Amino acid sequence: MSRLIRRGLRWRRPYSSVAASDIDHFKTILPPHAILSTLSPSTLPVSELDPYNNDWMGKYRGRATTVLKPKTTQQVSDIVRWCASRDIAIVPQGGNTGLVGGSVPLKDELIVSLASMNTVRSFDPVSGILVADAGCVLQSLTDYVAPHNHIMPIDLGAKGSCHIGGNVATNAGGLRLLRYGSLHGSVLGLEVVLPDGTILDQLTSLRKDNTGYDLKQLFIGAEGTLGIITGVSILTPPSPQASNNVILALPHFDNVQPLYRTVKRQLSEILSAFEFIDRTAYDLAVKHGQGRGLSEEDVAGAACFVLVETSGGRREHDEEKLTDLLTNLLEADTPLINTGVLSQNPAQFSSLWALREGVTEAVSKEGKAYKYDISIPLASFKTVVDTTREQLRSKGLLGEHAVKHVLGYGHVGDGNLHLNIVAAAYTQEIQDALEPFVYELVASYRGSVSAEHGIGAMKTHALHYSKNDVSIEWMKKIKALFDPRGIMNPGKVLE
Amino acid sequence: MSRLIRRGLRWRRPYSSVAASDIDHFKTILPPHAILSTLSPSTLPVSELDPYNNDWMGKYRGRATTVLKPKTTQQVSDIVRWCASRDIAIVPQGGNTGLVGGSVPLKDELIVSLASMNTVRSFDPVSGILVADAGCVLQSLTDYVAPHNHIMPIDLGAKGSCHIGGNVATNAGGLRLLRYGSLHGSVLGLEVVLPDGTILDQLTSLRKDNTGYDLKQLFIGAEGTLGIITGVSILTPPSPQASNNVILALPHFDNVQPLYRTVKRQLSEILSAFEFIDRTAYDLAVKHGQGRGLSEEDVAGAACFVLVETSGGRREHDEEKLTDLLTNLLEADTPLINTGVLSQNPAQFSSLWALREGVTEAVSKEGKAYKYDISIPLASFKTVVDTTREQLRSKGLLGEHAVKHVLGYGHVGDGNLHLNIVAAAYTQEIQDALEPFVYELVASYRGSVSAEHGIGAMKTHALHYSKNDVSIEWMKKIKALFDPRGIMNPGKVLE
Repeated sequence: MSRLIRRGLRWRRPYSSVAASDIDHFKTILPPHAILSTLSPSTLPVSELDPYNNDWMGKYRGRATTVLKPKTTQQVSDIVRWCASRDIAIVPQGGNTGLVGGSVPLKDELIVSLASMNTVRSFDPVSGILVADAGCVLQSLTDYVAPHNHIMPIDLGAKGSCHIGGNVATNAGGLRLLRYGSLHGSVLGLEVVLPDGTILDQLTSLRKDNTGYDLKQLFIGAEGTLGIITGVSILTPPSPQASNNVILALPHFDNVQPLYRTVKRQLSEILSAFEFIDRTAYDLAVKHGQGRGLSEEDVAGAACFVLVETSGGRREHDEEKLTDLLTNLLEADTPLINTGVLSQNPAQFSSLWALREGVTEAVSKEGKAYKYDISIPLASFKTVVDTTREQLRSKGLLGEHAVKHVLGYGHVGDGNLHLNIVAAAYTQEIQDALEPFVYELVASYRGSVSAEHGIGAMKTHALHYSKNDVSIEWMKKIKALFDPRGIMNPGKVLE
Repeated sequence: MSRLIRRGLRWRRPYSSVAASDIDHFKTILPPHAILSTLSPSTLPVSELDPYNNDWMGKYRGRATTVLKPKTTQQVSDIVRWCASRDIAIVPQGGNTGLVGGSVPLKDELIVSLASMNTVRSFDPVSGILVADAGCVLQSLTDYVAPHNHIMPIDLGAKGSCHIGGNVATNAGGLRLLRYGSLHGSVLGLEVVLPDGTILDQLTSLRKDNTGYDLKQLFIGAEGTLGIITGVSILTPPSPQASNNVILALPHFDNVQPLYRTVKRQLSEILSAFEFIDRTAYDLAVKHGQGRGLSEEDVAGAACFVLVETSGGRREHDEEKLTDLLTNLLEADTPLINTGVLSQNPAQFSSLWALREGVTEAVSKEGKAYKYDISIPLASFKTVVDTTREQLRSKGLLGEHAVKHVLGYGHVGDGNLHLNIVAAAYTQEIQDALEPFVYELVASYRGSVSAEHGIGAMKTHALHYSKNDVSIEWMKKIKALFDPRGIMNPGKVLE
C-alpha cells in the first residue's frame, strides 16, 4: 500500500494549489493591480480570468485561480522562488496565441503573465541588435525598429498579440524563416528565471561569443518548461527596399522540385518565399473569396500552385530578375509551369499573398478542420496528402457526410507541409482514422509531427514519432536537472 | 590526511592510462591499421604520433600513447563504452586546426581521430541539406556541393584541413557568418556518441522540427567535452553567381559606424563582408607584400580601411549597386571616405582580399604576436586598441625593444575584433601587462574574450570574464549530467 502511494507520488506529483496565504505573500512582491485572483476575500469574477485560462482556439481550458503580472525580472524571480518553496506549479504565459495548448493551465496552476514586461531595453541601429523584455508584442517591436530600416527576423499571423518571449519559447517559424533562418541563429542572448528562482543572465548583445556551452539554446523551443524567459536579445536584419511576388500554375506536382531548384538559382539571395498550394487548397481559397490571382483559363489544367516572393535592395533589379525568370520558365522547351501572374502593384501583391494566407480562413469557413503541421521531404508532399485521402476513402469517410476535402499547402523552402482534413463535423471515427495513421506516415519519412507549432499539451503522446527513445530520455534528464520539482509548465512537451 | 586525499581525488580525477590490455580490446573493435600505439609490444616511434599530440601552432604538446581511427559510429560507441568502463580519458580530434589547444591531450589521454569517418551520407540538391560524417574535410564538402550550385555556410582559413565535425564542435565562425549566420542556425541535426557510449541520433534532415528540446545545440561549441560528434546534417545555401569587392579609405575611425549603416542599407542582401583594418594593420600587410590596393596618395590621411564584399545573383546588378554606393559616398557633402578602389577583375578581387587576409601572415613575419579574438561593440574597436597601446606605453613596453605594434582588424559586421600585439619576443613582462588587462577591458564592455576561437585549454581561466557565475555553474551541471566521469576532453572549456 505504501509502495503504491509512493509510486503515485512519483508519477503524479501533488502540486499545491494557490492559497489565500500565497496571495498575501505575492502582495509583498507585486502591487495590487498586478495580482488577479478569484480566491477569497477577492470578489473578482471567475470570468475575468477566461482570457488567461483559455487558449484562443477555445480548445484548452485551465482552472487557474490566480494570474500574476510582474513588471521586472526580480519580481519574476521572487514569485518563482516562492512557488518552488511551496510546490506551486507555474504556467508562463506570453500572448497566449499558441496552437498546441502550451500556454494555459491544465489544472489550477499559477499563471505568470509576461504582459507587463513590455519595454525595449536597448537597440543598436548599427549592429541591428535589439534587447527587449519578453512581454513585448512582436508587432510593436517591428514598429520600433522600422524607422531604423530594420525588420524583425520573424513574422507570423499572430504578430499583433504574440510576445517575443513566447516566440522564442516556442521557437516560432513563420513566413521569414526561408530568408532569415531560425531563432536558434538570430537569438543572441536570453535572460531566464530558472525553476528555483535563479536569474540566468545570458542577455549578451554579441553576434559572436564562443565562451562555453550555449545554454540559452535549451530554452528556445522548450515551451516554458525549463524556466521563464524574461528578456531577449535578437539580431534584426536590414529592411528590404522592395518586395515582389508571382503566382505560378503547375501542370504536375512533380514539377515543384525542379521549379524550386530553378527559382533558387535564378533569384538567389532575393528569394524570400516559395509557398506551395495544392489545387484543392487553391479552389477553396477562391471559393471563399480569399485573394484573386489567375483567370479560369489559367487555372484549368493546374495541379498545384506556387507563390514566389522576392525581397531585395532595389526594385528595378528585382523586377528584372523576376521577369527574366518568368520568361525563361514560359519559353522553356518543356515548361515547368502552365502560366504565371506577376503582381504589378501593392494591391495585387497583397491579393496574391491572400490566396496563400487565406487558405486557413477558407478551410475554417468550409467546415471543421483536422490540421497537421508536419515536416517531410518536399518530394513526398503530394504522396502524404494522397495517402491520407486514400486512408479516409478506405474507411468510407470521404464524402459530404464526413470528410469533404483533404488538402495540403505550406512552406516548400522549409519542407513544412500543412495537411488539412476538412470535415462536416469533428467525429471520433475520423479522428481514429487519422491518428496514429498520419503520425506513422510522417515517421516513415523521418519527418516531424510538429514543424513549427510545438508540442504543448496537445502532442506529448506523439513526441515519440519524431524523437527516438534516447532523445526523449535525455530531454527528461534535462528537464529533471533544471526543474527537479517539475513545477514549470507541467504536462507540456514531456508526458 | 584521508580528507586531503579525498579532496585530491575530487579535484584531480585519476584517469587510467591506456594499457596494453586496452589495445587488445580495441583490436576487437577496429582493424589493426586503425590503431596507432606506441605501447609495447608495438614498435611505432613516438614521433609518429606528433601530428596528433601537437597542435598546429606548436604551443600545446600532449603525451598520448594511442590514437584510434574508427570508421563507423558504432566503432566510436564501442570505444567510448570501453573507456567509460575503464576511466580512460578521451580527446576527440578533427583536423586539429584549432587555436586554443582544444584538440590535443593535456596528458596521455586516448585520442579518437575522426579522420577516417569521411563519407558524405546524403545530399538533397533541392533542399540543399547535406548529411556527412564528422571527419569530412570542409573543403571536400565545398567541392562536393559545388556542382549542385551550393556552397557550405562556413568558410575559414583552415578549410583544407579542418573537419566539419570540428567546425561544429567549436562553433566555427569565419568569413561567411555575416551573410549565412552561425552554425546554431545552419546545423539541422547531429549524431553524437555520448560519454557513456550511447549514440544520440538527432541526425534529422529537416529544416523545421519543433518536437521537444533541441539537444543538439548543446554540442555546438562544446569543444568535444560533452560527447563525440560523428555525423552532421547541415543546410547549404545556393551559390552566389557573382562576387565583387571594394576597399575604402577612411579619414577617421568614427566614420566606420555611419559607413556600415549606409553600406548595409544600400547593398542590403548582397552585402557579404564588411571587414575593418586599422592603419597599422594595413601598413604591415603592405610592408610584407600582402595584396596591393591603394596608391600612396590614396593612403595618405587614412586612419583605417574597410573592405566591402558583395555576393549576389547577377553580376551587372551587383556592380551597379556597388558603383552607385561608391558614387554616393564620394559625392556626399561630408564624405565618410577619402577614396575607394573597386576591383575590376578576379586578380584585383583576390588582391584586395589579400590585404585583409594577409594581416595574419604579415604580423607573424613582423614579430611575435599576442593575439586576442574578442567581441566588443563596434564603437569601441578603436578605444580598445588605443587603450591597450597606452597600457603598454605606461609600462615602458612600447618600442623596438619590446612591443613594436598594437593593431586591430576584424569582422565589423560580427562585432569581432582581432587585437594583435606584435613584440620583438614573447616575454613574461608583456604577458603580465596584457593579462588580465585585456580581459578586464573586454569585460567592461560586456564583451566576449573568445568571439570565435573557443576556450579549449587556453582560456579556461578567462571564462569568467565573459560568463557570470550562474552561467558557469550551469555549464558545470550540464557537463556533470552528460559526463559524470569527466572522461570527455578533460581540462577543456571548464577548469
